Amino acid sequence: MSVVDNEWGISQYPVVPGHEVVGKIVAVGDAVKNLKIGQQVGLGWFSDSCMTCEWCLSGDHNLCQDSEQTIIGRYGGFADKVRAHENWVFSLPEGLNPETAGPLFCGGITVFNPIVQLQIKSTDRVAVLGIGGLGHMALQFLNAWGCEVTAFSGSSDKEAEAKRLGAHHFINSRDPEALKGLENSFDVILSTVNADLDWEGYLSALRPRGRLHFLGVPPNPIATSMFSLLFGQKSLSASPVGSPGVTAQMLEFIARKQLEPMVEFYSFDQINEAMDRLREGKPRYRIVLKR
Amino acid sequence: MSVVDNEWGISQYPVVPGHEVVGKIVAVGDAVKNLKIGQQVGLGWFSDSCMTCEWCLSGDHNLCQDSEQTIIGRYGGFADKVRAHENWVFSLPEGLNPETAGPLFCGGITVFNPIVQLQIKSTDRVAVLGIGGLGHMALQFLNAWGCEVTAFSGSSDKEAEAKRLGAHHFINSRDPEALKGLENSFDVILSTVNADLDWEGYLSALRPRGRLHFLGVPPNPIATSMFSLLFGQKSLSASPVGSPGVTAQMLEFIARKQLEPMVEFYSFDQINEAMDRLREGKPRYRIVLKR
Repeated sequence: MSVVDNEWGISQYPVVPGHEVVGKIVAVGDAVKNLKIGQQVGLGWFSDSCMTCEWCLSGDHNLCQDSEQTIIGRYGGFADKVRAHENWVFSLPEGLNPETAGPLFCGGITVFNPIVQLQIKSTDRVAVLGIGGLGHMALQFLNAWGCEVTAFSGSSDKEAEAKRLGAHHFINSRDPEALKGLENSFDVILSTVNADLDWEGYLSALRPRGRLHFLGVPPNPIATSMFSLLFGQKSLSASPVGSPGVTAQMLEFIARKQLEPMVEFYSFDQINEAMDRLREGKPRYRIVLKR
Repeated sequence: MSVVDNEWGISQYPVVPGHEVVGKIVAVGDAVKNLKIGQQVGLGWFSDSCMTCEWCLSGDHNLCQDSEQTIIGRYGGFADKVRAHENWVFSLPEGLNPETAGPLFCGGITVFNPIVQLQIKSTDRVAVLGIGGLGHMALQFLNAWGCEVTAFSGSSDKEAEAKRLGAHHFINSRDPEALKGLENSFDVILSTVNADLDWEGYLSALRPRGRLHFLGVPPNPIATSMFSLLFGQKSLSASPVGSPGVTAQMLEFIARKQLEPMVEFYSFDQINEAMDRLREGKPRYRIVLKR
């Protein structure tokens, strides 16, 4: 939807969306080694990267400066067929439900990646801001990872579900007193919201060495005084979707821990209805279009 | 000077400054184990910490929430005598010149600490913003650490000296074109300046996984759009002086690598002259008061 509506200013029309794709392989190129026709696979934000730069060679293909994005300047997964480099196409491990697996390939890996990148430990206290497509997966991952998990959401009616998904604590982020008494509480805060919040307040809620990490993109710049970071050696960071290696780790972890995205199913001819629901922020928590 | 002039709003008058102190021990408490009367030692920003919290117990005494700061709410090293906990008092290793060692205990450890905390590697390309009391030590440390070092300074007359201190490249930061063509150049940028610079520009100069780390405190908040951090998995952070363990490592490293702060000597009765010189940003690069 962000690309359909050009929210990030990077869209190239005509857009064919679809960057969380699950399907079957119908053709492979001569050089493909690890995939076979008929195999069930997933594809996410990236469809190719150069494979020769230092980042690709270091396993950080997601940081390649010459990568191809599935729905930017080419047609994505809403088409009948979609083409991608085999290294960016993932076979689904045994035990993973293909019907609900789509959202893992962008939303899922976006929240799993920082757990690996920030080296989040099972003893860490982690807060998740925003319980939607990304946040509801973050709660599951972090709980399975062994962390103490706090959900912040502006929708207080999500409390029971957030706790079922893995949150140990739930805080209504619209409460103006929400952050009161929470100084020095979290090792990591993962923000999945696309809104401007009280970032200085959330920085104070971090413990020493704490990290405020962004996966969503707030409309306005984040501003912080250096003193908010300095004494506690805190940091502010962001990351994109994960590399092929980390994506494969995520899929294994999900299958082993029996985690699953919560989705609503729509058929392709209900697409406008589904897009409207998305624009209103209503899905719980991701929409899957079925063919 | 920042404390004398209450620049950070944390001063408590009357102030007796002096948080980069080298002297001889004249008395020890009953419980002191590792220090003896007559020993030559140094003392920095912290004079005590609780020794029982999780941070002190983890070797991160500098992140203790109940620490004592040498010149905040008590009298510092300009006094005839100064008292501190033995864990925050450091004996000077063999081969280290006590006359010039003072600035190591705040300025020096402030720039050495991030090398350890950010796990800077010998293969990293590191930029130092501001070549003054902190920056001139950063150049020496980073060069000795094996990094490729770039100095940014607004004073183009510092180029030769910066290179002698360890910079491989020198860039005049007042040149409006300074950052042109430098996209994707540095793994780490250490900012020691107390000024507002083009932070978005410096973020673009970072390579993927790059970190813009603050040791100086700019007058205004740092503002950044999330997109400047997200695609390259970049971060923005800050840190205080190092722990006792890291300070001891620094002293050993300096002695082994034969590094030394560049200082100007003043006597105590020239103190007002020295303070004026400091306010004008003129010292090359730190002032030592001799008794």
